[in-house]
Amino acid sequence: MAIQVSVIGSGAEHEARAEEVGRLLAGRGCTVVCGGRGGVMAAAARGAKSAGGTTVGILPGTSPLDANEWIDHVVVTGLGHARNAVVAASGNAVIAVGGSYGTLTEIGFALVYGRPVVILEPGLEVEGVPRAKTPAEAVELVLASVAR
Amino acid sequence: MAIQVSVIGSGAEHEARAEEVGRLLAGRGCTVVCGGRGGVMAAAARGAKSAGGTTVGILPGTSPLDANEWIDHVVVTGLGHARNAVVAASGNAVIAVGGSYGTLTEIGFALVYGRPVVILEPGLEVEGVPRAKTPAEAVELVLASVAR
Amino acid sequence: MAIQVSVIGSGAEHEARAEEVGRLLAGRGCTVVCGGRGGVMAAAARGAKSAGGTTVGILPGTSPLDANEWIDHVVVTGLGHARNAVVAASGNAVIAVGGSYGTLTEIGFALVYGRPVVILEPGLEVEGVPRAKTPAEAVELVLASVAR
Amino acid sequence: MAIQVSVIGSGAEHEARAEEVGRLLAGRGCTVVCGGRGGVMAAAARGAKSAGGTTVGILPGTSPLDANEWIDHVVVTGLGHARNAVVAASGNAVIAVGGSYGTLTEIGFALVYGRPVVILEPGLEVEGVPRAKTPAEAVELVLASVAR
Repeated sequence: MAIQVSVIGSGAEHEARAEEVGRLLAGRGCTVVCGGRGGVMAAAARGAKSAGGTTVGILPGTSPLDANEWIDHVVVTGLGHARNAVVAASGNAVIAVGGSYGTLTEIGFALVYGRPVVILEPGLEVEGVPRAKTPAEAVELVLASVAR
Repeated sequence: MAIQVSVIGSGAEHEARAEEVGRLLAGRGCTVVCGGRGGVMAAAARGAKSAGGTTVGILPGTSPLDANEWIDHVVVTGLGHARNAVVAASGNAVIAVGGSYGTLTEIGFALVYGRPVVILEPGLEVEGVPRAKTPAEAVELVLASVAR
Repeated sequence: MAIQVSVIGSGAEHEARAEEVGRLLAGRGCTVVCGGRGGVMAAAARGAKSAGGTTVGILPGTSPLDANEWIDHVVVTGLGHARNAVVAASGNAVIAVGGSYGTLTEIGFALVYGRPVVILEPGLEVEGVPRAKTPAEAVELVLASVAR
Repeated sequence: MAIQVSVIGSGAEHEARAEEVGRLLAGRGCTVVCGGRGGVMAAAARGAKSAGGTTVGILPGTSPLDANEWIDHVVVTGLGHARNAVVAASGNAVIAVGGSYGTLTEIGFALVYGRPVVILEPGLEVEGVPRAKTPAEAVELVLASVAR
């Protein structure tokens, strides 16, 4: 089974970085897990696919048609925002790219479940969570955490 | 229907403040919602009952016997930590007393769902969330928010 | 803490029976738990309130305003249909009045969680689940189960 | 994106049939979704892998290590039995092989969410759900339903 890394976050200004994170993760053989919809989620999945990777999208709604076109495997939760708990738990590690309140819940769940988290700069401020300056550094940090 | 205020958080050093928050909320006619278990959750419920109030406990596990003795109405979710989303959403407003990662998820969900949140000092740092110096101030702030 | 009985089901032709179930449960001192919305859910809550009882409504959506007017305590799950698991688990026992696929999930969860279930005739067919001919018999059966 | 079929159920006496269902689904290019754990879930995944297929396991617990060895992509929900809603919703169609109360919830959710369901004989009795005599017939029936 491949290492799974959840890429979370939101914000149009963060999409290029999210795409780069997805591309680098796929290049390292990781499966990219995300929330399956648009914005940062779509960018991370698109990046992964551009590098020949595999993607899992964990949707809040009840229709698989809500998934963006770069999702290989669709998980349809019907749980609304509570699906954030599933996105966080389903990564062996988590990278946050931008984001707002929903991302805050995902970072919280990642910490609750003991998943290593890295926040890519610029991003949310959460005490005690390591930060990376570049997508490459974020990927290195989470992979080092998973290896430990 | 009474106004429902969710009291969230954890940490033994915060229990006296949580109890006072519960007592004051009950005195103002509010129902106290919490996670139903020990620590800050039990303290808030105990405070509410000491003032003749009503309490709802939203449990992570599958047994109603997990509820603390000050819970009037038990909600058994079986959802584990994802029940935090339900605790946050079930308050017309939310007061955070101490807390750690789980509390962070609850604050995030409260913001996602548009519930007014107040953090009682000392407490977590979440950008943009108003803070109160005393239990009385926290109760005033959330009730003012709900009234608007 | 009062005994909590979840009343589940749907179908306009079953509402009179659901109201009678709610009334009888309240008369026996039980809190009525339901899905918080219309139809059989509202009827059960209305019956309970008509007998001076207490009600808990566990909503699928994210707004407390979705609750019917006979709900005393609102649980806002935001979980969509997955909230059925919470409705089933939150009763010390469960009475099914009419119903369709959603009710089937609730009966299944009640059995998974070991909650006694009674199906009021006419109702769904689920192998091994006891059936009652009248609301009074349904209430007697579940209370006898809880007492054991 | 491949068609996803959720294989649900339990019971040691049904594992050979579940494995055959998984094998046939993979042979038809479908991804097999299941609950990720042992018994019928493992058998379905094993069958899929034996035919070169892809599998998704949607776990109730919080550890990816709970997944059986034939799972390619692990979804860690932490939701306990409520994860059954996610298993049902994540299939474009659902095949039930044996099973008990948990399977009943999954069939109910599949019907709630409008997913075609087929029960493989011998299996649970649920009114209105088509039944198949053999794994091959079950696979044909669900694929015909998805195509419509």
